[in-house]
Amino acid sequence: MLTDSVVEGPLPHTFRKVWDELAPIGRDGRTGGYLRYAFTEPEQQLRDWFRGQAADRGMPVESDGNGNLFAWWGDPAAGDAVLTGSHFDSVPQGGAYDGPLGIVSAFLAVDELRRQGVTPSRPLGVVAFAEEEGGRFGVPCLGSRLLTGALDPARAAALTDRDGVRLADAFGGVPAGARPDLVARFGAFVELHVEQGRALVEQDSAVAVASVIWPHGRWRLDFTGEGNHAGTTRMADRRDPMLTFAHTVLAANRQARRHGAHATVGRVRVEPNATNAIPSQVTGWLDARAAEPETLDRLVAAVHAEAVERAQADGTGLTVTEESATPLVGFDAGLTGRLRDLLDVPVLPTGAGHDAGVLAGLVPTAMLFVRNPTGVSHSPAESASDADCAAGVVALARVLEELTCR
Amino acid sequence: MLTDSVVEGPLPHTFRKVWDELAPIGRDGRTGGYLRYAFTEPEQQLRDWFRGQAADRGMPVESDGNGNLFAWWGDPAAGDAVLTGSHFDSVPQGGAYDGPLGIVSAFLAVDELRRQGVTPSRPLGVVAFAEEEGGRFGVPCLGSRLLTGALDPARAAALTDRDGVRLADAFGGVPAGARPDLVARFGAFVELHVEQGRALVEQDSAVAVASVIWPHGRWRLDFTGEGNHAGTTRMADRRDPMLTFAHTVLAANRQARRHGAHATVGRVRVEPNATNAIPSQVTGWLDARAAEPETLDRLVAAVHAEAVERAQADGTGLTVTEESATPLVGFDAGLTGRLRDLLDVPVLPTGAGHDAGVLAGLVPTAMLFVRNPTGVSHSPAESASDADCAAGVVALARVLEELTCR
Repeated sequence: MLTDSVVEGPLPHTFRKVWDELAPIGRDGRTGGYLRYAFTEPEQQLRDWFRGQAADRGMPVESDGNGNLFAWWGDPAAGDAVLTGSHFDSVPQGGAYDGPLGIVSAFLAVDELRRQGVTPSRPLGVVAFAEEEGGRFGVPCLGSRLLTGALDPARAAALTDRDGVRLADAFGGVPAGARPDLVARFGAFVELHVEQGRALVEQDSAVAVASVIWPHGRWRLDFTGEGNHAGTTRMADRRDPMLTFAHTVLAANRQARRHGAHATVGRVRVEPNATNAIPSQVTGWLDARAAEPETLDRLVAAVHAEAVERAQADGTGLTVTEESATPLVGFDAGLTGRLRDLLDVPVLPTGAGHDAGVLAGLVPTAMLFVRNPTGVSHSPAESASDADCAAGVVALARVLEELTCR
Repeated sequence: MLTDSVVEGPLPHTFRKVWDELAPIGRDGRTGGYLRYAFTEPEQQLRDWFRGQAADRGMPVESDGNGNLFAWWGDPAAGDAVLTGSHFDSVPQGGAYDGPLGIVSAFLAVDELRRQGVTPSRPLGVVAFAEEEGGRFGVPCLGSRLLTGALDPARAAALTDRDGVRLADAFGGVPAGARPDLVARFGAFVELHVEQGRALVEQDSAVAVASVIWPHGRWRLDFTGEGNHAGTTRMADRRDPMLTFAHTVLAANRQARRHGAHATVGRVRVEPNATNAIPSQVTGWLDARAAEPETLDRLVAAVHAEAVERAQADGTGLTVTEESATPLVGFDAGLTGRLRDLLDVPVLPTGAGHDAGVLAGLVPTAMLFVRNPTGVSHSPAESASDADCAAGVVALARVLEELTCR
């Protein structure tokens, strides 16, 4: 395979040197996790770093009015451009690799091409998308959805973060929204990403190509009850939304196992959240994913039905709001096959959403994954070896050379 | 009964006038709930109001170095003083009556005595205790526990609120701790409080006398697991602490019903609390109460055992920390009987903790309850009619006259 770990030569060291520049930015010293929320100080520092890297390479930077940055080698107005990159923002207490690895690898792949004397015959762009995780404003792939017109800019502007700050205020205005003029210039998009599971460990490969992204979505579950005194309210007189929430957490887990799918409740908000008060409201967020859309629909319906049944028993109320839904994304079969043959690597499905999934509807799109020995992601334990990251750079450079020159 | 609702005369109007002065302080305009945390701006305003009320009545105010305020009619150094009052602080999004009613009623009872030409032969003190709810620093009855020596001032100083602010910084130093010199002056304590249930509605009385406070406590349950990606982590590979937490919430409810006791999980903290991340840690707080200490012990042990069993199945960890424990408090039988006979009102047990429960170990102590038509407490729905509050003032004035003059 072209993509064994790279243990010889300077590339792993070069990778580590660049990587160490980013390591302190937005890191929580207590946990080692990252707090790189969109449009906050740490993410601004990462954007400044992006502009510096582009300037070092003589690549002009343009913004699309949606928070996404593009650094160009060649004139993008020529069209049929090859785009690569990922995002800087993290989930709360996320890992270092999810997102930034794709941007760092993109710049290093440009260096590899230049070192090899490759001159692209098509424009090559490095992109940093904004708010891919939805960690601040709740809508994942916010930047790419705005760019492609999948998200209304007025709706985006009104989104609020946990502190009640409106996106329009954090961003400095209403985003530009759909930019078909820019999207029309893209001939292909390839996103490199750290793997978020252990398939590459099991298949003993440093790199893979993605086949599909499972359909997935986020549902907000608002359970309402009657706030009251924890000490004096008889058990029979309670309408406690925490009970309905807890039952629903267990139902989601049970139903996901039953359906061979994934379901998670990882975020909760309680009102008033006091030790000696029965809550008046509990809000939980359900993240659900499955290999087929029908399975996902059945899973969510089953969890909903169990929650409603329990709410009736508890005397509580429930409203369910779909916050985002992403259909099954099949990456461009021709492009994916071409990369698989070029690199001789495994092809994997993934349960994780990506900007590549948003772009895939409009532009021939593919993804590369880099092995993650822990298999852990969205956590400080997320990792990748320098040798595997170097293999990712080599693979990406090979792909970019193939796409821009042939 | 002496304590029917008072619908004639100026007292209900006088009560309403004073009550309306306090109503805007610390109220959340969105919910109508109160955010009157110890040593914050709203509570400081309430203390200023206390000093103003005392000054209007020519009652000098002293502080005990623990955040508790005392306004005196007569010289407390004479000893055998009769103390009445309650607290200003609220739970998050609490009601208006829990606490402040006892302080307002105390000042109005002083006015009643003076209007009737009563001159106490023993000193009469109005007290405002600090941080009764534990809503900010987690330890309920903090002020009265410090005063009586039940809480070490160095331990109190190191407590932190939700934002990590140390009590010593919020309070402006380490509290004074035990003040046996002050406590020795108290001959009796009577706390008037809004009822936190519906017993007085059912018994058709505006006022009651308390018999006992159920033994109760707070336990912090730290569930640890492995933070990971919600989309890509196989269900079988997860160590999700939210599942163990949810099971424990339902176990606490089931065990409380089985034991004829009360158990509540009303407060939760999740790390990292992201929609697309399996939590690395979930912390829940268990509030448990029962009529007998043995029942409380059995209840907490049963919940603990269920949590441990589930943690083993989930591959998660659990540590349990007792944050506070209050034994059964029987109010002074002689004093309680005297008040019951004087007022001809019902005698009720309560599941709620109070500063009166702390004082009861050192000073003959009793409590009066005022009817709450909703039965709801620790919520904006908490209420009492002006006529019932006036009845409470009349009852308290009658009690103070009995105790200070006879």
